[in-house]
Amino acid sequence: MNRVRNFCAGPCTLPVEVLAEVQDELLDYQGSGMSLIEMSHRSSDYDAVHSAALDRLRRTLEVPDEFEVLFLQGGALLQFAMVPMNLVPAGSSVGHVRSGAWGKAAHADAERVCSAYLAWDGTDHRFSRMPQPDEIEVRPGTRYVHVTSNETIEGIQLRSLPDLGVPLVVDISSDFLTQPIDWERVDLVYGGVQKNLGPAGLAVVVIRRSALEDCVAGLPSYLGYAGHAAAGSLLNTPPMFSIYVMEKMLRWIQDRGGLSGMAERATRRSNRIYDVIDSSSGFYTGPAQPQARSRTNLVFRLASPDLDGRFLAEARQSGLVNLKGHRSVGGMRASIYNAMPDEGVEELASFMRDFAGSAG
Amino acid sequence: MNRVRNFCAGPCTLPVEVLAEVQDELLDYQGSGMSLIEMSHRSSDYDAVHSAALDRLRRTLEVPDEFEVLFLQGGALLQFAMVPMNLVPAGSSVGHVRSGAWGKAAHADAERVCSAYLAWDGTDHRFSRMPQPDEIEVRPGTRYVHVTSNETIEGIQLRSLPDLGVPLVVDISSDFLTQPIDWERVDLVYGGVQKNLGPAGLAVVVIRRSALEDCVAGLPSYLGYAGHAAAGSLLNTPPMFSIYVMEKMLRWIQDRGGLSGMAERATRRSNRIYDVIDSSSGFYTGPAQPQARSRTNLVFRLASPDLDGRFLAEARQSGLVNLKGHRSVGGMRASIYNAMPDEGVEELASFMRDFAGSAG
Repeated sequence: MNRVRNFCAGPCTLPVEVLAEVQDELLDYQGSGMSLIEMSHRSSDYDAVHSAALDRLRRTLEVPDEFEVLFLQGGALLQFAMVPMNLVPAGSSVGHVRSGAWGKAAHADAERVCSAYLAWDGTDHRFSRMPQPDEIEVRPGTRYVHVTSNETIEGIQLRSLPDLGVPLVVDISSDFLTQPIDWERVDLVYGGVQKNLGPAGLAVVVIRRSALEDCVAGLPSYLGYAGHAAAGSLLNTPPMFSIYVMEKMLRWIQDRGGLSGMAERATRRSNRIYDVIDSSSGFYTGPAQPQARSRTNLVFRLASPDLDGRFLAEARQSGLVNLKGHRSVGGMRASIYNAMPDEGVEELASFMRDFAGSAG
Repeated sequence: MNRVRNFCAGPCTLPVEVLAEVQDELLDYQGSGMSLIEMSHRSSDYDAVHSAALDRLRRTLEVPDEFEVLFLQGGALLQFAMVPMNLVPAGSSVGHVRSGAWGKAAHADAERVCSAYLAWDGTDHRFSRMPQPDEIEVRPGTRYVHVTSNETIEGIQLRSLPDLGVPLVVDISSDFLTQPIDWERVDLVYGGVQKNLGPAGLAVVVIRRSALEDCVAGLPSYLGYAGHAAAGSLLNTPPMFSIYVMEKMLRWIQDRGGLSGMAERATRRSNRIYDVIDSSSGFYTGPAQPQARSRTNLVFRLASPDLDGRFLAEARQSGLVNLKGHRSVGGMRASIYNAMPDEGVEELASFMRDFAGSAG
């Protein structure tokens, strides 16, 4: 098998060791005589996987005791609706930081559910940076301010969560488990797992218990956090395969230093590529301001868009795939998530240097 | 490997041929150099799987052109909310048939969204039968009547959809692709796939295009059918693994006669077990009235509950597992979904006859 280096923005590459374990167990999970995907979600075999996944998620993300971890379906997109439905009582409002395509989409959905205002808007900066804390407006009666810790499409990232005097809600989908979270400042974080943690089909919500107790009552079953929490994320049949693979991936992360290991890895590896960009004498340029550069989604442009096709074709020949930038931004994007091997990053750095040398 | 016969009510047994294909492809999907679960959901490889799954679902379920097929997350439970949110304009109401635990839950969630009345209530019959059409009340201003075609827990089934003069919405989760649907009578059917079609994490919604056009506007993105339909069920990252396995399972069903093949199979096999029950001189009894007996969830009791433990232990020794009835009903339940091999049903019939002989 000739395994490629997959720089896709999501779903993501997974460790080959994790995939091999899944493959081994696919027809007969640990002598049970059936596959895990055929099991009752109330069985003891599955329950052990489910509990281990909840526990490992809590430990790797360093979640304090005063928060509850939930496994849900519908991706981060369903959370755009569920967060305000659950957290915002009548008469309160929420502030949204529009830092890029995802922050914009979260705000648009919140407006459909409650009173939601723009606390900061990066449109005029073409989403090239995140706001300073004192640029974010917090109006009286604000239940929370919503931020996107990393904008997948524009390639910008919040280095730390601002202290705004009101709780934050944070979409961590695209930098999940790559930098620490200042839990004192948040009421809720959420993210799809399909970038840094496992296969698509699962979203993780981490909610402060006091916020859980104050959730809006009377929502339909699937849409209320309280019911999921009371049922240990087994309110209905969960996305068992995604949870099962994520549990293995979290073990893999724990074996490599956990959150601090992943944070070091993300910093070191993104710097490796940004160094190539910055030392290319202008052949490569990044639209993000340097202090806001994402450590997981590295967006860059070539000296001329005319070179894009050749860059992508030659990269593919070198086994480096999915480097094309999002259609709304153009150029290139290398998404370097937790499971990307170091060798993949080195190969990309070499390829980029060689390409600049031959085409520049 | 010693494969057991898994009579779980859900998730379900899958054909060993399907599992073996998934296993073969797990590290390298068709020479792409990556697993399908690592792929972009916008890639051509995944798109081919996605389109094939939509197409096969349409063909096997014999969905007419005037309906749209959607792949969603959140199980049937999220549909309990999404159906009334989308289909019921202000001023309309919906009627619900409370035919068992699932019909009851669907009604409870509808009440949280809109004006929902009980069109029929089987509580007094202990959910031992489905209603006759003339027993179902339809009030003026009713947008639809909701029915559950098969009650998984009580083991009763609607043999045909009633003509009530208003559209039906049907939860087909537990008899999905085991009996034909009278499409003229419905505006929408939905079901989780984890019983008859594949791994947990995916729900299928089939909605009449005219109903889609009339859907309530302004819902948050994930909760509106229109957005999913416009995006071809790629509004956000879909549950790719479940869709991929389901596509293989639908192919397996097509190779075995499609819907009519599965309907024949369900009738023949459920009759095999009901014959054992009916010829057991009262050792086995079923709480469902004969004409309402489910062809997928066969609920029965032993002569005495004292024998339950021995029955389950001896069944397990014979490789027959997950026969315990739901805690709310007691007794036994054999769920015989599409992928259960005929041999499994024969083994269960023999075991039940032998057990009645030795314990009766």
